[in-house]
Amino acid sequence: MKLSAIAKIVNADFNEKDKEITGINTLKDASNNELSFISNSKYVKDIASSQAGAILVDKKNKEHVPLGCVALVVKNPYWAMATLSKYFSPQIESLDASDAEIGEGSLISQKAEIAKGAKIGKNCTILAHVYVGSNSIIGDNTVIYPNTTIYRDCIIGRDCIIHSNTAIGSDGFGFATNKLGEHKKIYQNGNVRIEDDVEIGSNVSVDRAVFGSTVLRKGVRIDNLVQIGHNCDIGEYCVFVAQSGSAGSSKFGRNVVMGGQSAVAGHLEIAAFSTFAARSGITNNIKESGKTFGGFPLLEQRTWLKLQVKIARLLK
Amino acid sequence: MKLSAIAKIVNADFNEKDKEITGINTLKDASNNELSFISNSKYVKDIASSQAGAILVDKKNKEHVPLGCVALVVKNPYWAMATLSKYFSPQIESLDASDAEIGEGSLISQKAEIAKGAKIGKNCTILAHVYVGSNSIIGDNTVIYPNTTIYRDCIIGRDCIIHSNTAIGSDGFGFATNKLGEHKKIYQNGNVRIEDDVEIGSNVSVDRAVFGSTVLRKGVRIDNLVQIGHNCDIGEYCVFVAQSGSAGSSKFGRNVVMGGQSAVAGHLEIAAFSTFAARSGITNNIKESGKTFGGFPLLEQRTWLKLQVKIARLLK
Amino acid sequence: MKLSAIAKIVNADFNEKDKEITGINTLKDASNNELSFISNSKYVKDIASSQAGAILVDKKNKEHVPLGCVALVVKNPYWAMATLSKYFSPQIESLDASDAEIGEGSLISQKAEIAKGAKIGKNCTILAHVYVGSNSIIGDNTVIYPNTTIYRDCIIGRDCIIHSNTAIGSDGFGFATNKLGEHKKIYQNGNVRIEDDVEIGSNVSVDRAVFGSTVLRKGVRIDNLVQIGHNCDIGEYCVFVAQSGSAGSSKFGRNVVMGGQSAVAGHLEIAAFSTFAARSGITNNIKESGKTFGGFPLLEQRTWLKLQVKIARLLK
Repeated sequence: MKLSAIAKIVNADFNEKDKEITGINTLKDASNNELSFISNSKYVKDIASSQAGAILVDKKNKEHVPLGCVALVVKNPYWAMATLSKYFSPQIESLDASDAEIGEGSLISQKAEIAKGAKIGKNCTILAHVYVGSNSIIGDNTVIYPNTTIYRDCIIGRDCIIHSNTAIGSDGFGFATNKLGEHKKIYQNGNVRIEDDVEIGSNVSVDRAVFGSTVLRKGVRIDNLVQIGHNCDIGEYCVFVAQSGSAGSSKFGRNVVMGGQSAVAGHLEIAAFSTFAARSGITNNIKESGKTFGGFPLLEQRTWLKLQVKIARLLK
Repeated sequence: MKLSAIAKIVNADFNEKDKEITGINTLKDASNNELSFISNSKYVKDIASSQAGAILVDKKNKEHVPLGCVALVVKNPYWAMATLSKYFSPQIESLDASDAEIGEGSLISQKAEIAKGAKIGKNCTILAHVYVGSNSIIGDNTVIYPNTTIYRDCIIGRDCIIHSNTAIGSDGFGFATNKLGEHKKIYQNGNVRIEDDVEIGSNVSVDRAVFGSTVLRKGVRIDNLVQIGHNCDIGEYCVFVAQSGSAGSSKFGRNVVMGGQSAVAGHLEIAAFSTFAARSGITNNIKESGKTFGGFPLLEQRTWLKLQVKIARLLK
Repeated sequence: MKLSAIAKIVNADFNEKDKEITGINTLKDASNNELSFISNSKYVKDIASSQAGAILVDKKNKEHVPLGCVALVVKNPYWAMATLSKYFSPQIESLDASDAEIGEGSLISQKAEIAKGAKIGKNCTILAHVYVGSNSIIGDNTVIYPNTTIYRDCIIGRDCIIHSNTAIGSDGFGFATNKLGEHKKIYQNGNVRIEDDVEIGSNVSVDRAVFGSTVLRKGVRIDNLVQIGHNCDIGEYCVFVAQSGSAGSSKFGRNVVMGGQSAVAGHLEIAAFSTFAARSGITNNIKESGKTFGGFPLLEQRTWLKLQVKIARLLK
């Protein structure tokens, strides 16, 4: 899409040399033919080093945009980005892609739907009422149980097991809100990438990334009814017990254990080998690895247990 | 169904002029050709003004039934209502309804099931393994992702997006329990009505109303794995973050934000523009709008934060 | 499978008389032609009375294995059991079983999948996109709503209702972990058995047992988004409100009520007629029946309410 057309959609002045823009991305990850945006003054520091071809900014941040990068000045850059995200969203199904490829030895139910452009590896088992979206790739030996949905553009590794009624690649929960309280959807144009030997339970939601990928690394184990928000990075061999979850963009080191009904807030970093007891609520980075935590607010588990004893004494 | 037949089913004396009863409803909403019931003395005050054609009552409440309304005296009115609810329940699918109507420009997967009597608007996308039940209506431009179920008689607005593996219109959790601890299902003969521009995540449950409608108003945003109980009324632009929920019959003003894993008890009223932090537990009405709350028991969020500091001091 | 072959797979010495082993089971339940294991010294006491044909043990527990039972000595018996569990796992679908049997008067959607070897009773309604796995049995008059998955070998009683997008019989969350932090799946070779007159909501996960059965007894009521872990035994007329759950192997007496978002840890016994308020966290056995609890840590509900008053006073 031409930058001039983009400027027109968001009502920004545009007098620069036109160029083709292929997508939207963060300041950090945007390339020269991508558009970025600055929605929060916290990220002003990332403007100078951004490789973005153009940036949506409000008036007061215009001065930070470096030479060679086009500043598109708008009132509400986040709302403008949401508006534009729709234009970079692919079709729901790529109806003109080539027929799906199915690897040797794979059993695909007649009642499964493998969309155009998808590729299924060797010796896979895809049961009835599974949906694999356009351009998604399923590795060898992977089993997908009935009624599970793999949205388009997702990548699943080898030797994975995905249980029934799970959604991989549903849209992340993203929208801009204006002063009237109205919401505008931010189209989630990233994907989900699941590495080898991952097992995912039933009724799980793993959201696709807004940009880039939501990642589940090798050997991860996800129990039932778990929520993985967009752009999370779940480290190797992490374990999520039933009804736990992570908000978006949190990054987990390897072998983190999330107890049942525990939850991690967004944009956090969790050190490897951390263990969280059932119903822990994690709202800060965990920097030291190998510790066990519990409670909400979160404490080291032994401290939380001590605190409960002290609290119980209030009854006396 | 004749009132005389109803009386027979529930073993009530009946010597009045017979009449046709078309359904069961609350004291407040029942019309002259509907049956109502009084299961809880709290609602005795609603009897006098009820327009119901007949009311199931126990002996002690009989005197409150107004002239012109038939009192059916039974031992356990709630159990009797549950027993009768089955008789007013429609078929699971209306096999003799007319063929489904599909609007111009809509793409319906060959592997979706659109039941008889359903109407799909223009330019909709209905993906594989979706089920749209009898007499349900889907507005223009709405997208329904794979493996989602819309039960019969539900109404979905225009420009909605419903993600995978979601259930709209499953039965509310209703049953009567007798002294032996046995349960009897209360058939949920209402529906779900979703207004325009609503987005619902994956693995969400929105229960149909027992009577009337469960309502999601314009612009609502529901994340994954959320529970909306029967007869809730979710105000315009409300936001439910992942794994949050509301028990039945609660009414939300506009732009309420429910944090992750937060929950509202049943039969409450929540003022507009209320914000609830993650894992809030709301058990009372919120009367003043625009405030932020957290914790369980619920406090204003800043008070909850202060309290956590005080509690932590117990460790010293 | 021959015991000699088993010994070879797990690198154990084997000089005994060979015999056919038909499955893996707990020390308590294993029969003479089954293999068992001792993974936790807590269970050493169960070895002496075990009827198992052979037991996987580490060196230090070898001495406890009784005469007539073969000791297979391995470094990590739990890991060895996980390794072997795959060999006793049935095919995902029994492709060579006889065609499914459908009882008189049952309505089965053309878009449902009833796998080979399954048996559907009389007057059932099985809607579109339902999957019923090999050898599963559905009792008379049972209704299964769209997009629900019944895995293989499960047994559902008469007069049950299972709502949409629910998974019955998905694998329990079982794996062994080695010193490198790698996980090995324990195949869940048991099943789910649901008795008569049970209603299960939408987006529910009921996991199959690792050995034996996960059981939901007569009259149980399960709301939406509930987790029932492997090998649980849910007593007659128990009620699980939305988003509640139980970890594996817990046993519930009759008429237990689990409030919304409440949870029970694994391997507990819960006395009949216990009531747990919303968001209760139960981590110990409940021995006395008929009481009401709340909070996490759990207290009697009236004590929990008192404690909240005391805690609130810290603000003063």
